[in-house]
Amino acid sequence: MCQLLGMNCNVPTDICFSFDGFRIRGGLTDVHKDGWGIAFFEGAGCRVFLDVEASAKSPVADLVHSYPIHSTNVIAHIRKATQGRVALENTHPFQRELWGRYWLFAHNGNLLDFAPPSGTRYRRVGSTDSELAFCFLLQTLCDRFPGVMPPRTELFEAIVEIAGQIGKHGEFNFLLSNGDSLFAHCGSKLCYVVRQAPFTTAHLADQDVSVDFSEVTSPDDRVAVIATQALTDNESWTTIAPGTLMLFHDGLPIDSASTAIAV
Amino acid sequence: MCQLLGMNCNVPTDICFSFDGFRIRGGLTDVHKDGWGIAFFEGAGCRVFLDVEASAKSPVADLVHSYPIHSTNVIAHIRKATQGRVALENTHPFQRELWGRYWLFAHNGNLLDFAPPSGTRYRRVGSTDSELAFCFLLQTLCDRFPGVMPPRTELFEAIVEIAGQIGKHGEFNFLLSNGDSLFAHCGSKLCYVVRQAPFTTAHLADQDVSVDFSEVTSPDDRVAVIATQALTDNESWTTIAPGTLMLFHDGLPIDSASTAIAV
Repeated sequence: MCQLLGMNCNVPTDICFSFDGFRIRGGLTDVHKDGWGIAFFEGAGCRVFLDVEASAKSPVADLVHSYPIHSTNVIAHIRKATQGRVALENTHPFQRELWGRYWLFAHNGNLLDFAPPSGTRYRRVGSTDSELAFCFLLQTLCDRFPGVMPPRTELFEAIVEIAGQIGKHGEFNFLLSNGDSLFAHCGSKLCYVVRQAPFTTAHLADQDVSVDFSEVTSPDDRVAVIATQALTDNESWTTIAPGTLMLFHDGLPIDSASTAIAV
Repeated sequence: MCQLLGMNCNVPTDICFSFDGFRIRGGLTDVHKDGWGIAFFEGAGCRVFLDVEASAKSPVADLVHSYPIHSTNVIAHIRKATQGRVALENTHPFQRELWGRYWLFAHNGNLLDFAPPSGTRYRRVGSTDSELAFCFLLQTLCDRFPGVMPPRTELFEAIVEIAGQIGKHGEFNFLLSNGDSLFAHCGSKLCYVVRQAPFTTAHLADQDVSVDFSEVTSPDDRVAVIATQALTDNESWTTIAPGTLMLFHDGLPIDSASTAIAV
């Protein structure tokens, strides 16, 4: 199993504090040492940092820690391999293009007997169930809305349906972003916190590090942080109910729906 | 205009020495300061480091300099913007997937009146002529060889033809790799050197740094380095004739053809 970290904001924000607590779970305070990755949207562009080293020790993670990249949508993942060997091509987040936009995806869980029909457009490069699920998701969106991205609400409804279909095959926690919004699906375990004025001091759960957000923010800033496990021990994290897709935009959860499918 | 750097090897090799000479042309010894990028294939996976900072000053370039990533195919690019503003989405190399493989592309030049029909599968995210050319190239390959990658020779012949078509629109120097081979097209300016036993000491043209390759290689190693301008001043670089596509595999040029099209 793996762990997920996401951030969605109304203004470009750096994720250094949350990433500090998260990365040490990759080999130090927890066992997710089979590679890691983090992806930042910056405008229409995005950059993805990947490493097969444990994030606690990775020189690339040192860079991400010390080089504050400001982004409105971030997705990070630390891996404990289930399907697919430890290799760069199996390291999340995965990236593809759809409707002239980049899409990023990271998954925590394990899908069994998941063998969707091979799509004409999206094919996995590695050997994970996760990349297969991402390709199926994009292929389905692309088939349903050819040519142009639909309005956010229609997009959300379509992803609810697809997440439900894939979720029948096992544990399917994922974070997905197109740079505009962040879609967070809880299959079994995911929680979030929204930081906004009045800002307080947050303290990491994994190490004795605090930050006073009132000193580093403006009153209008708003940041949602989504994680497999709460990253701080003095903030009120909201548990997302299993079988729920949430839509985060401008630092707020703006929609939520059950992905459970009647069988 | 921009500058290109590529490497194709028979065993995974780090590019630190060549990159050292190359990166300082991005804002220090030359004017290409509008962002830069470098992409490494590692097996089927690849990782792309991008930055809108000048490469001479970029913290990401410091990481690439100090963290030797071993790869058989590398493509790097330093940008002086012609078309498309300075932004992450306009920073080369660009990455897409075709036939279950990643493809990487970087371009030096300027294409005029280039408006290919919009493809169904590949669409640019940014606003450069370069990304448009890459999308057209992949779309054409995908249409011609649906489903499965053709043998290397057929692939080369197809790319010769496509490079010729695009090259009619202006200066079109590019490096392209699918992780197996590296395709290098000289539209106006490109050269290469092959390093193999007996290895000698190479000295950078842009700064007073030398490396004795006999100390850091095995006798069977073979590395081709391709660049806009020779990176060393004591090796014999071969100038590629304008209007030529070369195919590098396992550190050697194995094919070459004219892309000039009769009009």
